[in-house]
Amino acid sequence: MKQLYVDLGRRAYDILIERGILKAAGQYMRPLLQGRKVAIVTDEIVEPFYGAAVIASLEEAGFQTKLIVLPPGEGSKTISMLETIYDALMDFDITRADTVMALGGGVIGDLAGFAAATILRGVAFVQIPTTLLAQVDSSVGGKVAVDLKAGKNLAGAFYQPKLVLIDPNCLDTLPSRVLADGMAEVIKYGAVFDEPMLRLLEQAGGLAGLRPHMEELLYRCCDWKRSVVVEDEQDQGSRMLLNFGHTLGHAYEVAYHYETYPHGQAVSAGMCKIARMQQQAGMLSSQEVQRFQNLVRLYELPTEIPCTMESYVHAILKDKKGRGDKITLILLEQLGKGVLAPMATADLVRWLQETELQEKQSKERPQEEAV
Amino acid sequence: MKQLYVDLGRRAYDILIERGILKAAGQYMRPLLQGRKVAIVTDEIVEPFYGAAVIASLEEAGFQTKLIVLPPGEGSKTISMLETIYDALMDFDITRADTVMALGGGVIGDLAGFAAATILRGVAFVQIPTTLLAQVDSSVGGKVAVDLKAGKNLAGAFYQPKLVLIDPNCLDTLPSRVLADGMAEVIKYGAVFDEPMLRLLEQAGGLAGLRPHMEELLYRCCDWKRSVVVEDEQDQGSRMLLNFGHTLGHAYEVAYHYETYPHGQAVSAGMCKIARMQQQAGMLSSQEVQRFQNLVRLYELPTEIPCTMESYVHAILKDKKGRGDKITLILLEQLGKGVLAPMATADLVRWLQETELQEKQSKERPQEEAV
Repeated sequence: MKQLYVDLGRRAYDILIERGILKAAGQYMRPLLQGRKVAIVTDEIVEPFYGAAVIASLEEAGFQTKLIVLPPGEGSKTISMLETIYDALMDFDITRADTVMALGGGVIGDLAGFAAATILRGVAFVQIPTTLLAQVDSSVGGKVAVDLKAGKNLAGAFYQPKLVLIDPNCLDTLPSRVLADGMAEVIKYGAVFDEPMLRLLEQAGGLAGLRPHMEELLYRCCDWKRSVVVEDEQDQGSRMLLNFGHTLGHAYEVAYHYETYPHGQAVSAGMCKIARMQQQAGMLSSQEVQRFQNLVRLYELPTEIPCTMESYVHAILKDKKGRGDKITLILLEQLGKGVLAPMATADLVRWLQETELQEKQSKERPQEEAV
Repeated sequence: MKQLYVDLGRRAYDILIERGILKAAGQYMRPLLQGRKVAIVTDEIVEPFYGAAVIASLEEAGFQTKLIVLPPGEGSKTISMLETIYDALMDFDITRADTVMALGGGVIGDLAGFAAATILRGVAFVQIPTTLLAQVDSSVGGKVAVDLKAGKNLAGAFYQPKLVLIDPNCLDTLPSRVLADGMAEVIKYGAVFDEPMLRLLEQAGGLAGLRPHMEELLYRCCDWKRSVVVEDEQDQGSRMLLNFGHTLGHAYEVAYHYETYPHGQAVSAGMCKIARMQQQAGMLSSQEVQRFQNLVRLYELPTEIPCTMESYVHAILKDKKGRGDKITLILLEQLGKGVLAPMATADLVRWLQETELQEKQSKERPQEEAV
């Protein structure tokens, strides 16, 4: 078993990574939790795979359980679904000593986490993430949220779990598109923190070759996440490095109404776009950018997504981390080292325009490149 | 001006008490807040009294403002009203640097506070409480919440304001029933912390005589609240003293569907009932209990509310601070000194039954008392 300790003082917790750990959830949770009840929030896709095993383990450890099964997908991350969870928790007569568990991907984690953070002003929360994206990113660090009409994750909290259990076996049942979606975040960790991990990803040669390295990869990604969360829980400094590719990625998601491109694809294209902008500005070499884009392609992710300037501008102005006329962009000093770059939104827009223009020109005259 | 400093480290804040301070809101807020925008959440009753004055003051201090005016009353403290506020805040293009203000009574404070705590995972929050209840209780200490189908305040957070501005002039426009409602909490502070304040209330002889003492009373109540919040922000120890009268009070509120008896009346009857239970158990003298009940009557509040044993039991089992089979009851060691009394819920129910029986018998044979 691999173990990480997220040292947030009174709110410290462990991340445990092991094949099959899901079936031992009860024994790891029992010593940490006061109450007798665990409400398991999950979705209709995940529940048939893991619901029974988790319940059996919890009941063996002496917990009373209740399953709250939601429709799958981002469409469930609403205020009204939150109310459904609240009502189910109160029907279960949950007390402040009891626990809410998220068993599923990022949507379930965000939604169950927000419910745990706020029901009775906060009860214990346990995460069992079942997608790669949730395992390497959303289940660690305590960001919980729901979507609003105006955009994703606009209402939420910082609320740390008591325990995160990561079972690499869950990845075996994921469709490859969903797995690739999570790989975007893995590549992101490599890009901003960990050049050797990028090399490992290159050597693995793609998803199929990655399986024997999966536990190690999960550990490394969670360890990076752990380190920035401990340093900057509230996301006002180094944690923002995790935002690499996300501001532009958000533009793609919004432009296609969150339908055409899942989060990982949007983030991949966003990272590549930033890399090309940096190349255009002479901040990264064409070799570095090419290497990065090749890696992205190796993991079946896009390097670009068509987008209007208007959609870019809208996303930049609405960026949650922005303060209106200023934004903190994440750039790469080199592959494996991200940096915060605060700038005027107007400058970012101008830079994007210039890169767009240049890319358009080079596409119109591809023969020149061959000269 | 009277000033209190709620020392919660990085989340410390001031409570400023002064007649007319509402008209100077902008000048006190400006140095504390980064952003340019303030969204003012208020209700249809309060807005005509104070909306224009607060907006004028904020705009003079350079803030952009937006009014979010809700229907008055507990009926507004819902998840769906929270969503209405969220959407209005996003329409206002609020950023993490901006501020949500509550201008109103407890409902507005709880609702606007929950919105502030969660929109964009938390923005600055300022309280301008306009009822006595909100001024002495709900605006200080950071408890924010909405009601669920299963009961009041069941979803929420601990979220401290950046500033609380208390204008005693607001009390001049309150109907006396609403003022009396707040007096229940004032009497509660006296009962659990401050015997001299009980004497002051007795000497004032009722609401009319209290006016010259109001600023002093607001200060003393807020100071008591400040001291327990600093000691026990998360409400797991001494802060629970503020719960005196509330467990049984809650039974009255629920039994009458929050319609017949406002919160203060229910709490008053709850405090008196506990006092009589303590008398029955030989823990308080009949003189003390009589004195306390006379004071409650002096401020136009009830000493008892008819309630079935079933309603009591329901409220005790559903008590938010309970852990199922145990509950922390607040008792009086003497007038002016409350104590935490953890006990089995079954013991509390038995004690209530005995007191009920005794009270019933003494009512059936009132002549005996005169003997």
